[in-house]
Amino acid sequence: MTSRGVVLRLIGCLVLVMSHASFSQDAAQIARAYHQAETARIVSDFRAFLSLPNVAANYADMQVNAEFIQRYIAKRGFSSKVISAGGAPYVIAERLGAEGAPSVLIYAHFDGQPVIPSQWSSPPFEPTLWSDNPLAAGAYMLPWEQDVFDPQWRVVARSAGDDKAPVIALMAAIDALVASGDMPDITIKLFLDGEEERGSPTLAGVLAEVASDVEADLLLFCDGPMHQSGRRQLVLGVRGSMTVDLTTYGPNRPLHSGHYGNWAANPSETLMRLLVSLKDQSGRITVKGYTDDVRPISAQEVAAVSAMPRVDALIKRDLGLSESEFAGERLENAIMRPAIVVRGLSGGGVGAEARNIIEPSADASLNLRLVPGQKPEAVLASLKAHFERMGMTVSAKEPALGTAREKHVKMVARPGGYRAFRTPIETPAVSQLKGILDRLGDQETLVTPTMGGSLPIYLFEDNLDAPIVILPVANHDNNQHGRDENLRLANLFSAIEMYAEVLAGLAQRPR
Amino acid sequence: MTSRGVVLRLIGCLVLVMSHASFSQDAAQIARAYHQAETARIVSDFRAFLSLPNVAANYADMQVNAEFIQRYIAKRGFSSKVISAGGAPYVIAERLGAEGAPSVLIYAHFDGQPVIPSQWSSPPFEPTLWSDNPLAAGAYMLPWEQDVFDPQWRVVARSAGDDKAPVIALMAAIDALVASGDMPDITIKLFLDGEEERGSPTLAGVLAEVASDVEADLLLFCDGPMHQSGRRQLVLGVRGSMTVDLTTYGPNRPLHSGHYGNWAANPSETLMRLLVSLKDQSGRITVKGYTDDVRPISAQEVAAVSAMPRVDALIKRDLGLSESEFAGERLENAIMRPAIVVRGLSGGGVGAEARNIIEPSADASLNLRLVPGQKPEAVLASLKAHFERMGMTVSAKEPALGTAREKHVKMVARPGGYRAFRTPIETPAVSQLKGILDRLGDQETLVTPTMGGSLPIYLFEDNLDAPIVILPVANHDNNQHGRDENLRLANLFSAIEMYAEVLAGLAQRPR
Repeated sequence: MTSRGVVLRLIGCLVLVMSHASFSQDAAQIARAYHQAETARIVSDFRAFLSLPNVAANYADMQVNAEFIQRYIAKRGFSSKVISAGGAPYVIAERLGAEGAPSVLIYAHFDGQPVIPSQWSSPPFEPTLWSDNPLAAGAYMLPWEQDVFDPQWRVVARSAGDDKAPVIALMAAIDALVASGDMPDITIKLFLDGEEERGSPTLAGVLAEVASDVEADLLLFCDGPMHQSGRRQLVLGVRGSMTVDLTTYGPNRPLHSGHYGNWAANPSETLMRLLVSLKDQSGRITVKGYTDDVRPISAQEVAAVSAMPRVDALIKRDLGLSESEFAGERLENAIMRPAIVVRGLSGGGVGAEARNIIEPSADASLNLRLVPGQKPEAVLASLKAHFERMGMTVSAKEPALGTAREKHVKMVARPGGYRAFRTPIETPAVSQLKGILDRLGDQETLVTPTMGGSLPIYLFEDNLDAPIVILPVANHDNNQHGRDENLRLANLFSAIEMYAEVLAGLAQRPR
Repeated sequence: MTSRGVVLRLIGCLVLVMSHASFSQDAAQIARAYHQAETARIVSDFRAFLSLPNVAANYADMQVNAEFIQRYIAKRGFSSKVISAGGAPYVIAERLGAEGAPSVLIYAHFDGQPVIPSQWSSPPFEPTLWSDNPLAAGAYMLPWEQDVFDPQWRVVARSAGDDKAPVIALMAAIDALVASGDMPDITIKLFLDGEEERGSPTLAGVLAEVASDVEADLLLFCDGPMHQSGRRQLVLGVRGSMTVDLTTYGPNRPLHSGHYGNWAANPSETLMRLLVSLKDQSGRITVKGYTDDVRPISAQEVAAVSAMPRVDALIKRDLGLSESEFAGERLENAIMRPAIVVRGLSGGGVGAEARNIIEPSADASLNLRLVPGQKPEAVLASLKAHFERMGMTVSAKEPALGTAREKHVKMVARPGGYRAFRTPIETPAVSQLKGILDRLGDQETLVTPTMGGSLPIYLFEDNLDAPIVILPVANHDNNQHGRDENLRLANLFSAIEMYAEVLAGLAQRPR
């Protein structure tokens, strides 16, 4: 290489470094200036998107959501298609950079959990603006027409926190960068899931169809809440999730609780005995074989958790709790263990519907959260064997006529259960992304080994080569899955800034 | 005494004996002929009475029922008044015999358990006619217009079995006897309760007001089902009953079951642990002190139970059960023990309403059935102490702000709980009544120490001198308290015959 060559390369590097630094700095500032100027429009777009009912079981509703997204992203230069593999629709899209530009695949989902409207402070698909979390004392509703939007306010609607914000925020980031004339050269691909809250039962089919189209240098999963400390975080894993429904049986017709009380088997009591037997007093799972396949936690993961701010005391106070299930265990460690959550329990009526009868059956719904190594089939088999050791007949069917109903338990795993996933901390993309986000400057980005929640990431792991990292944007107290789900406006705004920074940073990635 | 006097007395006795025998024979035959001729009219009256909604909490509805009864019994020569002591109305009535005639006080109730109409095969207050128990395979609905009513058919409506039949059947018996010209000389008093299914919370006040008016030679409680063998029975006792509602607490807002599952306390799981701890595997109550006051079962009671036909195997087969709670124990003994029945259980949703959240609270409703000796306050205190020994704070209130919600249990005993009652078998009225009913001839009348169900008999024991015996008329499979409650027509007809026989028999009672 000639000395002129060396000088030219040095200048080239210098320009690259300078442009890198100034460009990144610009991206955050550009995004901030943009969302401050366009707040009303961005919030209005978010509100319109949230107004579309999005329970995944209703395909017609999901189609309306998909078409809304297509129109919305087309304005930002995305080509897209809506596909389905027999389930709810998915939106697959891309906005191409120059030939050979770095690429990023962004995942989000646009369906939401089912709703029980009567429990909500306002109808779940008529978004409202609140001064605070509607479940907080003193929170009140505000009119939508505002000159200035306080970042502490909340937008309340199903999917406000989980997971309609990423589409709106990402498009605002692109709008900001395009408007500034500094749009980074990067290929952006979108994989928008219309049935995540049902466990994405047809995702495998969809991925099989589009895997080659969505391959990228990095897969960024945009879902889940930020750390409870309010800190930005990169999350490297998710728990797997399964739903198991149980039904126990008593007499084949309702019986008077006086005439038959402590003679006839009570299905509510049978159900409780079965469920209580799954854990010991401290919350440790006692089902033989259930945890056999669990992958050990690595030393780096232990170190990463230790480096995180402790939030347990704060969250407990906030939630009105004095102790965690496993006394003294910090949340970040608890979610690295498998969980069995009794999410639903129903036997006879309570309150005004209570009657003095012994019911023919009682029901429970379990949410099983799996950790890396656990296989859904093995977990289910261990549960079945556990109940059988307790003297029960376990089957996916109702008890047959003439059988011992009180010894029968119907156990049905709902379709769509899946295993966990965890990216090793030492993966290069992890430190690269942390570096990009740390440029935002206000705080160091946390690296969290896993979130407690679930995403069907294992399928992407099976089908794509891209390293996978999760970048959550929602406030931790977004009431996701429950009533009065919400997004704090500050989180919407910071998401716009993060996405701008990430697009700019990734565009600089050595190819 | 002269020989003429002796002869006259002998003739008198002979006439009395002869008239007694022939009169009794007549009463059953008269009643049978009458209800066979008047079936359509009697069934139609029953249907009209059952068409009146009668959930005791709705006083206006209960007033309509009371007025129906007043009109209905006035036609049979009863004077009546409707009174209340701040609760639902009661109907107090009498039909006087000659001065010094024997007297009987008949108790029945005309309210019913709350309904969940969606569970019923037909609307609970639109009576329907069925070929069999609607819960039986192959049962079908029939038109009301019939030339002949098969005694196996069922009238289906709330309170068909519990407890509107006695008023209709008793009036039919009186109609039959009056029409025959052989109406026995007896004073019949009625005490008709409009709030029994709520535990008759104001019965004490009503009794205090009317005790002297309703005093009689015998109090006949007309409620409850006949023996499962189908045999007529006199029942000498009832269990007491209390309702205790429990609420347990988790986080003060719904939490995502993934992000917080096996860290945040789950109120459903806390509730189950508390409830399961109340009994051992065999159903024996393990709450310290709970059974301390239980009155021992007498040798006569043991003997009476032993003399009864064993129905356990039959009932188990009928109900699809293979074993009773306390393995091998016969039903008649099980109901002499105190029962804790979890009648309602609710935490989160099941089925289509299940969501992946940890709920802020969970609820249960317990029906406690007490036996003689147990005092409601002592039972409640032992439950409270039991939960406290498990580390819980027990209070009738919600947890205060800032407290450990997961260690709080709200425990509320609903008003109207009451203690048990049992008439000793050796009471003369018991053998007298058994003698009268045995004249019906088809079968020997069973004498049952107690029923499993509850009636507020203890208040009558406290306020009246009359011996108290229960004479049930409903089929045992009447689905009382549950959906598709029903009365078998044969039971309505046999009730008419029994009442006629009892009125005739009691009229002969030595004063």
